Amino acid sequence: MTQRIGYLGPRGTFSEAALRAMSVSEGADLIPVGSVTEALAAVRSGELPMALVPIENSSEGQVSTTLDELAMGEPLCIVDEYAHPVQFALLVRPGTSLSDVRRVATHPAAEAQCRLWMHANLSGHTVIPATSTAGAAAALTDDAAFDAAIAPAIAAEYYGLEVLADDIGDSSRGTTRFVLVTQPGPPPAPSGSDKTSLVLFMRENHSGALLEILTELAVRGVNLTRIESRPTKRALGDYFFVVDAEGHVLDARLGEAMTGLHRVCSAIRYLGSYPRHDGAAPQTKAWTENTEFLAASEWLERVRATGVAE
Amino acid sequence: MTQRIGYLGPRGTFSEAALRAMSVSEGADLIPVGSVTEALAAVRSGELPMALVPIENSSEGQVSTTLDELAMGEPLCIVDEYAHPVQFALLVRPGTSLSDVRRVATHPAAEAQCRLWMHANLSGHTVIPATSTAGAAAALTDDAAFDAAIAPAIAAEYYGLEVLADDIGDSSRGTTRFVLVTQPGPPPAPSGSDKTSLVLFMRENHSGALLEILTELAVRGVNLTRIESRPTKRALGDYFFVVDAEGHVLDARLGEAMTGLHRVCSAIRYLGSYPRHDGAAPQTKAWTENTEFLAASEWLERVRATGVAE
Amino acid sequence: MTQRIGYLGPRGTFSEAALRAMSVSEGADLIPVGSVTEALAAVRSGELPMALVPIENSSEGQVSTTLDELAMGEPLCIVDEYAHPVQFALLVRPGTSLSDVRRVATHPAAEAQCRLWMHANLSGHTVIPATSTAGAAAALTDDAAFDAAIAPAIAAEYYGLEVLADDIGDSSRGTTRFVLVTQPGPPPAPSGSDKTSLVLFMRENHSGALLEILTELAVRGVNLTRIESRPTKRALGDYFFVVDAEGHVLDARLGEAMTGLHRVCSAIRYLGSYPRHDGAAPQTKAWTENTEFLAASEWLERVRATGVAE
Amino acid sequence: MTQRIGYLGPRGTFSEAALRAMSVSEGADLIPVGSVTEALAAVRSGELPMALVPIENSSEGQVSTTLDELAMGEPLCIVDEYAHPVQFALLVRPGTSLSDVRRVATHPAAEAQCRLWMHANLSGHTVIPATSTAGAAAALTDDAAFDAAIAPAIAAEYYGLEVLADDIGDSSRGTTRFVLVTQPGPPPAPSGSDKTSLVLFMRENHSGALLEILTELAVRGVNLTRIESRPTKRALGDYFFVVDAEGHVLDARLGEAMTGLHRVCSAIRYLGSYPRHDGAAPQTKAWTENTEFLAASEWLERVRATGVAE
Repeated sequence: MTQRIGYLGPRGTFSEAALRAMSVSEGADLIPVGSVTEALAAVRSGELPMALVPIENSSEGQVSTTLDELAMGEPLCIVDEYAHPVQFALLVRPGTSLSDVRRVATHPAAEAQCRLWMHANLSGHTVIPATSTAGAAAALTDDAAFDAAIAPAIAAEYYGLEVLADDIGDSSRGTTRFVLVTQPGPPPAPSGSDKTSLVLFMRENHSGALLEILTELAVRGVNLTRIESRPTKRALGDYFFVVDAEGHVLDARLGEAMTGLHRVCSAIRYLGSYPRHDGAAPQTKAWTENTEFLAASEWLERVRATGVAE
Repeated sequence: MTQRIGYLGPRGTFSEAALRAMSVSEGADLIPVGSVTEALAAVRSGELPMALVPIENSSEGQVSTTLDELAMGEPLCIVDEYAHPVQFALLVRPGTSLSDVRRVATHPAAEAQCRLWMHANLSGHTVIPATSTAGAAAALTDDAAFDAAIAPAIAAEYYGLEVLADDIGDSSRGTTRFVLVTQPGPPPAPSGSDKTSLVLFMRENHSGALLEILTELAVRGVNLTRIESRPTKRALGDYFFVVDAEGHVLDARLGEAMTGLHRVCSAIRYLGSYPRHDGAAPQTKAWTENTEFLAASEWLERVRATGVAE
Repeated sequence: MTQRIGYLGPRGTFSEAALRAMSVSEGADLIPVGSVTEALAAVRSGELPMALVPIENSSEGQVSTTLDELAMGEPLCIVDEYAHPVQFALLVRPGTSLSDVRRVATHPAAEAQCRLWMHANLSGHTVIPATSTAGAAAALTDDAAFDAAIAPAIAAEYYGLEVLADDIGDSSRGTTRFVLVTQPGPPPAPSGSDKTSLVLFMRENHSGALLEILTELAVRGVNLTRIESRPTKRALGDYFFVVDAEGHVLDARLGEAMTGLHRVCSAIRYLGSYPRHDGAAPQTKAWTENTEFLAASEWLERVRATGVAE
Repeated sequence: MTQRIGYLGPRGTFSEAALRAMSVSEGADLIPVGSVTEALAAVRSGELPMALVPIENSSEGQVSTTLDELAMGEPLCIVDEYAHPVQFALLVRPGTSLSDVRRVATHPAAEAQCRLWMHANLSGHTVIPATSTAGAAAALTDDAAFDAAIAPAIAAEYYGLEVLADDIGDSSRGTTRFVLVTQPGPPPAPSGSDKTSLVLFMRENHSGALLEILTELAVRGVNLTRIESRPTKRALGDYFFVVDAEGHVLDARLGEAMTGLHRVCSAIRYLGSYPRHDGAAPQTKAWTENTEFLAASEWLERVRATGVAE
């Protein structure tokens, strides 16, 4: 039976482009879903076994809906990630030339990233906000109230459009990171280059609490690749943190650090251990290998049972 | 001559409502500006002496444009802040009743916060995305392609609209924090309840660097009320931090902590010391009062000059 | 069969006075041994099941022989401790008056503590060094080359002497702490007010290593009541530490801290968990109770087995 | 006029041997003094301008009298240090052979270090305790009650003795470190390889206080080469610490660390900055050079005066 995988639609989004580049999509049915919230709801309900959603962008930063859903909705697990370059194109109906373009539809974030090119090449144009770049492309039918869309180039093939200009973003290095999400289940085996995502709620909102959390990780030699603060929506100044720790939940160092966080945080949520998109090995400190934790545990058991001193 | 103060327009925004509530606005000309970027540019150019822009929302989190502009644009200083409750209303042309409403325009973030009320009270409505809530209200003219706008109630008075329902947001505690920004200048005198905002760029992107930063602050007894990570836009995984530290740049403890951060960070930017909106006193640790720093400095000078031992 | 317990002799020492004050001595044969080294050797060989030796004095500090023997000799365990007040007396042969006293024998440390009294009450006296205070008393026979001994008052009864003046020490609060030592065995059950002694050898001799050790303890909320540095006798500047940690080896917080120390130290030796002489409860930090460690471990096991997120 | 320098006598001690090896002794009158306490009192009173006393031994550890005098007596400053190898010899009256030796006088610490050689080479000998090794040599006159003295070989020349066996200590690497002490005065110029000694009294006697102290040092990149705990003589369990920090009081990093210690300690005493005997360069961390502290201070002054942001 064919595997079905959701992604943040409509057809032609960067989510689709990223999903097509992942091996899990081979031979699978790729299903566009209207929003991150709906995609994750479909996974929770079992309608879809998994979905790919954006979580972070190198220019715009955190994708707050994804973070908030993963942190506060019904539990889900991340099982894989992928980093896809963000490359915008100016799409038009066949036959439109640059001088014809007056009104351009796109998502505000895309517009922000293409502003330099737009000012240089399209004087006096108006921007029409759209809920997504692919949505702008999809809406560029003959009777649209606008002449062009800023969208991924792959959207052109779905909607019968032409790429008038490609790679028009201000920064050539823009990248979006996507995560593949499923219902909670046992973690995949460690790959040697893994990341574990956690959501941490503080007992108290002060820097001491964050210092305490970082110390719990540092003492066991666990490095973070990322830390994001998000409001709890309870009050201004009340945050939680989403962190990506290097390593796998089955690693001794990360396991012990997680038990430390479990104690000092008011709540902790495990979001999954999964292979890193960049294949990098963790930066660890000396004397934190699994064998060293095991030797220490065995020594402690021996001391407790027999009083043997060293 | 009348003081001119910019704010994130158009007329009828929460920015205007917040500015009106601040004493600085008394007798001043309040000038709506089209975007955060434009408002800050007008302050930088000297066109406006100061401007009020949103920086944080208790539901949506960071206002990334404001953070990025303050962190990476030409230097500006925050001289005051204000926290304003976010309360959405459903505005209509006079005479429109709830059963007439089919299409509702608003900013996507406002739509997200009013979703529960909308689903309960308006079945089958369509949402029209707008670049701002006040903008949606402003566009609700007789020939608009929509029937209602979700916007601050004060927008009704500017645009000849009626408040069909007030306070329709999901969470009654939504608050936006705004900052009043000027060109850099000497800090105002300490009020006893101040906050200092700093932008910190790391030499290395790992949790050790963040732990080091927090330790520089903790050792001098400086608490943080907020820490936000933002991408540097250089590469995925390359962040900077915007922190709000309790205290004033003229405080000994914060001054010494800032010199420590200056050393360990690759770059640091001072964004201003200003009175806290909540009037709270700083949480400090023992032996970090100005008098204690002064006594320690005097002792050191004595030891260095005379070898006096204690 | 009668229990035999060794102590640092000869008869009449503070060790004997301390041992008599401990309940373990009731009905036991108390055996004086010539030196700390010999007393511990007798326990190691099985000749004596246990021995009481001094480990610390409130004026003189560490008893280096005891620390070095426990740290580097064949393993032994501390099973109890006792703190005994140090109170010196001037002992003489019956009939000797103060004006007859010209030459006074005692251990140099005792002489140091009684110097003020001696200068005030005995002008022009000569001090004869002895290897122990009780030894000086024992040697005060009719044909001794000295007229008085500074020693514990209880020595008078063994050696037929008179107490010419009692409590002649400079500081009225002098106290010696003694430890009762046996061959290694399973630790006694926790009493709620326990101490655990450890010997820690550093991988590197710098303050970073000591900071690392203290951090391993602090993160788990384990307080130290004492830390002593001792030379390893390998080279100047090469030290090990003897620490007394609050709590029992069976406590979760101390157990985990000990595994951390096992990893970061080049060597670690357990010297025993035993009831504190002062009956004080440990100073711990929040969220480090056994139940909290247990809950954290169970959560981790659940996450590892099922991916359950919180 | 000839410089007069005191040392721990009598003639023939290791202190004298060490002092002779230091350049300060060239052309100076070297004055033996009876004890560490007397030598330091002579410097305090002005009777002697400086004195050399032992402070640490690689086998025996701290010289507690020296530490206690420097920490709690009238203030003095260390201006230099020297590490001298400890090498014991068996000294006899001319004509005595090994088989004649029955009773051997020496200081108990020396006896402890020569025990292996003595057992191997002198069966059935008796040890006579002396207050110093050189004192034992000095007392080995024709009518002495003993036949040999364990003492430094140089004592032979003063007292007309013969070296029957040299280098009879158990460990060939024994070293004593001596410090040259004067009245307090301005520190000597930094040499690039300096050490600064400090006495630190805690506000509270727990490991948290020691962790706090080490953190104050570590944050400024100041390494310790040595930390010793000593009892305050007030109560059991009440300690102070004597630390040797790398660097000079005029170094920015050490100066700032000292002000931090001044704040967090209940009392602090400066014991001097002086060239290290081993000429080693300090181990420092990045971004703690004088130029970096200076740049940070200048930046802070600029921010405080003008609000300039970076």
